[in-house]
Amino acid sequence: MRMSIGYKGKVTSLEIVLDRNGSEPLYRQIAEQIRRAIVDGRLPVGVQLPTVRELATKVGVTRLTVQNAYAELQSGGWIESTVGRGTFVSARAAVRPRWSAANGAATPAGVIGDILQMGAGAGVLSFASAAPDPHLFPETEFWAAFESERQRLREASSYGPAQGDAWLRVELAAHLAERGLPATPEELLVVAGVTQGVMLAAQALARPGDSILVEQPAYVGFLHQLRTLGLQPVTVPVEKEGPRLDVVEQMARTHRIRFFYTVPTFQNPTGYCMSLSHRRQLLALAEQFDFSIIEDDLYGWLAYDEEPPIPLKALDRTERVLYVSSFSKTLAPGLRLGVLAPPPALRDRLLGLRIAADLGSPLLLQRALAAFLHRGEFRRHLRRILPVYRERRNALLAALARAMPPGVQWTKPQGGLCCWLTLPRPAPVGEIPRLALQQGWAVAPGSVFWTNPEGERNLRLCFGGLTVDQVRCGVEVVAQVVRQQLKLTAAPVSPEEWLPLV
Amino acid sequence: MRMSIGYKGKVTSLEIVLDRNGSEPLYRQIAEQIRRAIVDGRLPVGVQLPTVRELATKVGVTRLTVQNAYAELQSGGWIESTVGRGTFVSARAAVRPRWSAANGAATPAGVIGDILQMGAGAGVLSFASAAPDPHLFPETEFWAAFESERQRLREASSYGPAQGDAWLRVELAAHLAERGLPATPEELLVVAGVTQGVMLAAQALARPGDSILVEQPAYVGFLHQLRTLGLQPVTVPVEKEGPRLDVVEQMARTHRIRFFYTVPTFQNPTGYCMSLSHRRQLLALAEQFDFSIIEDDLYGWLAYDEEPPIPLKALDRTERVLYVSSFSKTLAPGLRLGVLAPPPALRDRLLGLRIAADLGSPLLLQRALAAFLHRGEFRRHLRRILPVYRERRNALLAALARAMPPGVQWTKPQGGLCCWLTLPRPAPVGEIPRLALQQGWAVAPGSVFWTNPEGERNLRLCFGGLTVDQVRCGVEVVAQVVRQQLKLTAAPVSPEEWLPLV
Repeated sequence: MRMSIGYKGKVTSLEIVLDRNGSEPLYRQIAEQIRRAIVDGRLPVGVQLPTVRELATKVGVTRLTVQNAYAELQSGGWIESTVGRGTFVSARAAVRPRWSAANGAATPAGVIGDILQMGAGAGVLSFASAAPDPHLFPETEFWAAFESERQRLREASSYGPAQGDAWLRVELAAHLAERGLPATPEELLVVAGVTQGVMLAAQALARPGDSILVEQPAYVGFLHQLRTLGLQPVTVPVEKEGPRLDVVEQMARTHRIRFFYTVPTFQNPTGYCMSLSHRRQLLALAEQFDFSIIEDDLYGWLAYDEEPPIPLKALDRTERVLYVSSFSKTLAPGLRLGVLAPPPALRDRLLGLRIAADLGSPLLLQRALAAFLHRGEFRRHLRRILPVYRERRNALLAALARAMPPGVQWTKPQGGLCCWLTLPRPAPVGEIPRLALQQGWAVAPGSVFWTNPEGERNLRLCFGGLTVDQVRCGVEVVAQVVRQQLKLTAAPVSPEEWLPLV
Repeated sequence: MRMSIGYKGKVTSLEIVLDRNGSEPLYRQIAEQIRRAIVDGRLPVGVQLPTVRELATKVGVTRLTVQNAYAELQSGGWIESTVGRGTFVSARAAVRPRWSAANGAATPAGVIGDILQMGAGAGVLSFASAAPDPHLFPETEFWAAFESERQRLREASSYGPAQGDAWLRVELAAHLAERGLPATPEELLVVAGVTQGVMLAAQALARPGDSILVEQPAYVGFLHQLRTLGLQPVTVPVEKEGPRLDVVEQMARTHRIRFFYTVPTFQNPTGYCMSLSHRRQLLALAEQFDFSIIEDDLYGWLAYDEEPPIPLKALDRTERVLYVSSFSKTLAPGLRLGVLAPPPALRDRLLGLRIAADLGSPLLLQRALAAFLHRGEFRRHLRRILPVYRERRNALLAALARAMPPGVQWTKPQGGLCCWLTLPRPAPVGEIPRLALQQGWAVAPGSVFWTNPEGERNLRLCFGGLTVDQVRCGVEVVAQVVRQQLKLTAAPVSPEEWLPLV
């Protein structure tokens, strides 16, 4: 079907060809062809699309099919509808994804916004987001869990308790037990993802101006949170076994530390996993210098080689660990559901903060997740996805070994979704991500994971959302950009190399 | 079916009788009978319930039916399951709902927690919560909207943009236009209810220690938020036409005011609606004294007599109004979805705060709401519910006129869900709610809506969740308690009355 669309005196044409026997739903075929027409400029910004009825008739599909296609395009920001006026190619469609970091005005919030939006951009594949692969989402099983709550939909339309649905907390307690963490439903708070859990914990523990310990490099989202809260970061380098304990001790001696934010298991961005003995020693330091620990165990379930050590919280004898985890890396970030297990004495304060923040999480999603956990679907789901991510991790490490120029180093994550590259010398901030993006690849700039970046010495490569072939292909592109940058910033002959032997 | 259950050496028995031809689903009949057995003590705390399989066999239903019954009981906190151990009557089941306020240690968070939990308590009917009636929730239509997103479930499992789903923002812009508020999708932020919208707005506008204006009485949730944020409340009495403008002016002259938080349309807790001329004058004062306005329009859609004036935001020419609304009072609080329309210059700052708070709202619910709005279901839903709430409002006002003792006054709300009672003299804080609760009725203590309560001079009666008959019956109970309290606190003969005429 070909139809002509008039626009500013010009006539543009839209051709839609449907494969009615294909596995791709018709609405998606329509959406994809319109999207491509927008990307390659055949449908310019501002052009009015046919009405649903009109397109349905011309293409020979139901109106619902066209409605769904338009809805998909709308939600991707490609088109916009105004009631009574019609549907138009959106101005946002012309905005190709770009890194805020590239223009020198990077803020963590900007970068996080970029990462969240990268996926929606035209023709971009992404190493940037530490998100699970949506193709691995257990659609059928999750929908079944949802449907089992259909008959209680009315009840779920109400406010639930701010602490979280009682049933979900029962399931969460059982879930945490599998991670080696004994907890009762009463002590748990359902939270809107680890992000909210960490935010509430930080608010409960510290006031603006207080000093807190943070790993370097660290999750960019937390760096944004600590700036938002006006906290003073005191940094601790993280290494293969965990954060440098000598630095923790030294900093705790010289600063009044309120808490230490750590991702002990498969850290973001490095992928490092803190050893058991390191965990014990860190807890001993926390006791000695009386600081709390916010333990972010977001990646704890994604172990590819062997079981990781039990959480710090499980080793905590003095009620100083606030444990946070969620389903964003294992199941679906779109659920925005996680769990916070604080020391009992802090529970009511945290509940008060949650009530001030948003009153609680959507009951319907909480119940769907409870049903999903209750049916054992989460365990089955994990068994399905772990081999897939393991294979992608292996493909990434092999491809890096093949393609990266000498001097570039990277971590060998035993779990999680992040791999951390270190260049032999820094490139200008934002250049590598910008150049990679020009070739259709999003990579998170390493600079945003440092409190005080000095050039772009690192890149975070997240392999979760890419197939093995995509991983290989993407590493080639990134390696080429890295090689090019290293040439431009060729190592100056450093004075040391010229020192005469005396 | 009668079965014996052994517990600590005693034998207790559980009898379940099913009406297989009734309209009540079997699982609910089972859940209700177990709940009653718990309430009246036949099944004490800690007793182990039969396994799903066992109960299903004895009662002659499928295992799924028993599973659903147990799930319902779990989510209400009546029973608890531990994997591998079994299902037990929960310790929480023994806790009858009570008002934190009654024990003299009332905090806003405590009271909000109480209100959220009241509904779940055993045999309590509630005037306490300004929530819509879940029985009016358009189950079928909302589920249909959900199902229309079934095929895009995978996509919706991902992180969406922090600003909110693009499609939902298109629908929200159209939605706000119906309230007389022109807005583009680009300027809107999807938020987790008005609570989050107000929190983000307050964080963007003020720092700890700053002074802000707040109506008196005011929404208890906001009073909690301002304490959480460390803001200094400067109070303005609210009257039938709106807040006292002379006081606004006086306070703005004597304090550096950052913002004024107001619910201009069908205020919580009074039900008052600010007149159009009042709105214009308030905006003029905001311009003159350079403060912002956080406009909470949560109840703006619930007009029973005539259309309310357009929002302050629609009259704002100097970009100082941050407009917030949601679907919690009209459709379903359990969605936790609302909209924030800030001045454009504040958008990125608010987005940064949202990213720090929780990264965004669940995409699946956003899309379901978008579909619901897109299909015109919200408008149809409003047409269905307005007459119902109008009738309940009328029943409340009539019952109050019949039952309340002389000297008690109350507002005549033209919309919203709240009616505000004022007693001729204060009762001890918490007494009336405590006594009403003993008779199975929850009423929000008026004291929590004041920044500095002096006794219990007020009660908030929310009529949304009760049938006309329940409203009548509840007013009788409350009136009786009020009468009793007024007798106990009989007016002391005040000195003025004895002053000789000179």
